[in-house]
Amino acid sequence: VHCITNDAAHVLSANMLLAVGAVPSLTTARDELGDFVRSADAVLINLGTLDDQRLEAIDLAVEAAASAGIPWLLDPVFCNRSRKRVRLACDMLTRAPAVVRANEREIEAICKQLHASGPEALAESAGTVVVASGPHDLITDGKRRAVVENGHELMSRSTAIGCAGTAVMAAFVACGDDAFDAAVCAMTVIGVAGEIAGEGAAGPGSFVHRLVDAIYCMTADQIRQGARVS
Amino acid sequence: VHCITNDAAHVLSANMLLAVGAVPSLTTARDELGDFVRSADAVLINLGTLDDQRLEAIDLAVEAAASAGIPWLLDPVFCNRSRKRVRLACDMLTRAPAVVRANEREIEAICKQLHASGPEALAESAGTVVVASGPHDLITDGKRRAVVENGHELMSRSTAIGCAGTAVMAAFVACGDDAFDAAVCAMTVIGVAGEIAGEGAAGPGSFVHRLVDAIYCMTADQIRQGARVS
Amino acid sequence: VHCITNDAAHVLSANMLLAVGAVPSLTTARDELGDFVRSADAVLINLGTLDDQRLEAIDLAVEAAASAGIPWLLDPVFCNRSRKRVRLACDMLTRAPAVVRANEREIEAICKQLHASGPEALAESAGTVVVASGPHDLITDGKRRAVVENGHELMSRSTAIGCAGTAVMAAFVACGDDAFDAAVCAMTVIGVAGEIAGEGAAGPGSFVHRLVDAIYCMTADQIRQGARVS
Repeated sequence: VHCITNDAAHVLSANMLLAVGAVPSLTTARDELGDFVRSADAVLINLGTLDDQRLEAIDLAVEAAASAGIPWLLDPVFCNRSRKRVRLACDMLTRAPAVVRANEREIEAICKQLHASGPEALAESAGTVVVASGPHDLITDGKRRAVVENGHELMSRSTAIGCAGTAVMAAFVACGDDAFDAAVCAMTVIGVAGEIAGEGAAGPGSFVHRLVDAIYCMTADQIRQGARVS
Repeated sequence: VHCITNDAAHVLSANMLLAVGAVPSLTTARDELGDFVRSADAVLINLGTLDDQRLEAIDLAVEAAASAGIPWLLDPVFCNRSRKRVRLACDMLTRAPAVVRANEREIEAICKQLHASGPEALAESAGTVVVASGPHDLITDGKRRAVVENGHELMSRSTAIGCAGTAVMAAFVACGDDAFDAAVCAMTVIGVAGEIAGEGAAGPGSFVHRLVDAIYCMTADQIRQGARVS
Repeated sequence: VHCITNDAAHVLSANMLLAVGAVPSLTTARDELGDFVRSADAVLINLGTLDDQRLEAIDLAVEAAASAGIPWLLDPVFCNRSRKRVRLACDMLTRAPAVVRANEREIEAICKQLHASGPEALAESAGTVVVASGPHDLITDGKRRAVVENGHELMSRSTAIGCAGTAVMAAFVACGDDAFDAAVCAMTVIGVAGEIAGEGAAGPGSFVHRLVDAIYCMTADQIRQGARVS
């Protein structure tokens, strides 16, 4: 999975990808991005750091992914905090991401900008899968809709867990042929891992590492038994 | 708290801010920095990475903070190692930071450059609060002076703990109306947390996460009982 | 040790250097790189992030190191994934690095590009020490050859452990007068630490911190008893 992501998310994204058995790469350099994207199975575009270099890299990576038929995912971090960012997020929705994953406030900001009535309408009009994360995660492609109730409160008390989760989702999208199913599975697996990690965690510092351990160690049975999806 | 900080400090600064209940943001992108700074309650400027983009971002962020009346803090990391950096640190002192926090060697380098006789004289002439961290932390605004003796030796054996501590101090400055008091409180809280984390830590690796856990979990009683301030 | 390294390796490289008692610095800024390099005892050049700024910094840092007689090490991360990167790695081999450390696939890519028959031939023709890491690490200067069998499988399941290991190797090269011996010692120490850390680790998340703890805490006896070098 090739990730163009924010400075605070590099390490955790790489480690969560390694924990699920994927190979992360992270470069944003113009001259080699094409090589990296074309040899990847999915691409993550996270808008958390938008310097000039990354803006150019985002454009190049999406173009390379599109022309090679490689699915890409959009994580419009903090697009509710900056006008530039919400406009960029909306522009990128016209370029056919497989999935858009954001928290409720970020999805709201995008819906408002595009006059969409909610996640379903947004998914329908953009032809994508929308994942609105929160205490309960909503996943929809406009027609289907799933709610994942797994997760742990400490997941929002440590930086980049959401961003790294979208990177893991990219690995799931790469392995399946239905982005909706892949997104539901990814949110469930990460949520169940969060619950395992949260049990007995002393705080958000130790939680992060327990989360990586849980993702690495968890069994299909643990996922099946822990999943709360409707 | 909006942080312009060095590459090695992003994750820990964000995590320590989340642990005290603050919302971190980290962007350096020219077009959206104003939006982020104006919606923040304090700004941290850390000189640990001085590429062109960050130099421009530092200038824009300080300007935006000043014109919006938002307090900003300066952390002149390693200004004792580079002539450019000590000059920049001195320039920035003329732009009214609420607090300058640095280790003893960095404060010395600034004092030498400005012909100040010590932290008190520096605080007085620059009209700021100076925090000189070390085995004992000295906090002064030129008139008042406090010494915080809390802390643990492992705090200097893991990267970015000082940088992240200044980010937490920014959150304290945002919440109070006296930067001197806020700085004393922040150094005390982090020092006490360091002592809690250090007890039983196997080394600097596990110490960092125990520190984040301790900051997240500690009670007012623990702080009151642990504080060694004079 | 001054490190020009990739975004995902900053924190761990700094922490592993602090754990062995070295002082890490990480800047890439043109105007101060010379000051930092000249006051360092060794320089690490890691090709993991190749944006314009870092490309320029790499060139400046190698020049400054060479003219000051400071040894520098090359870590050509992922040069098997990008044509630009393998060419750059080969160019840099003509500038007399003390050590090139890479995994087997990366060394293969360089050998292929330079028509070298293997690590020994590469070391001989480039006049450097080649470290080819893998389940067994091969270290050679073309004449001498050592194999280090220490290590733990979790070392490849967390990001930047190899990159940070090369940073630690730079500290070893700085302290000795034979880069071959220094490289063998560094690989052994890190491998033994990996074995100590791996015992009882719940997964790759907790492993990383146990590794830093192990490097910080290990004794000469532990290294002597644990070493499997031939």
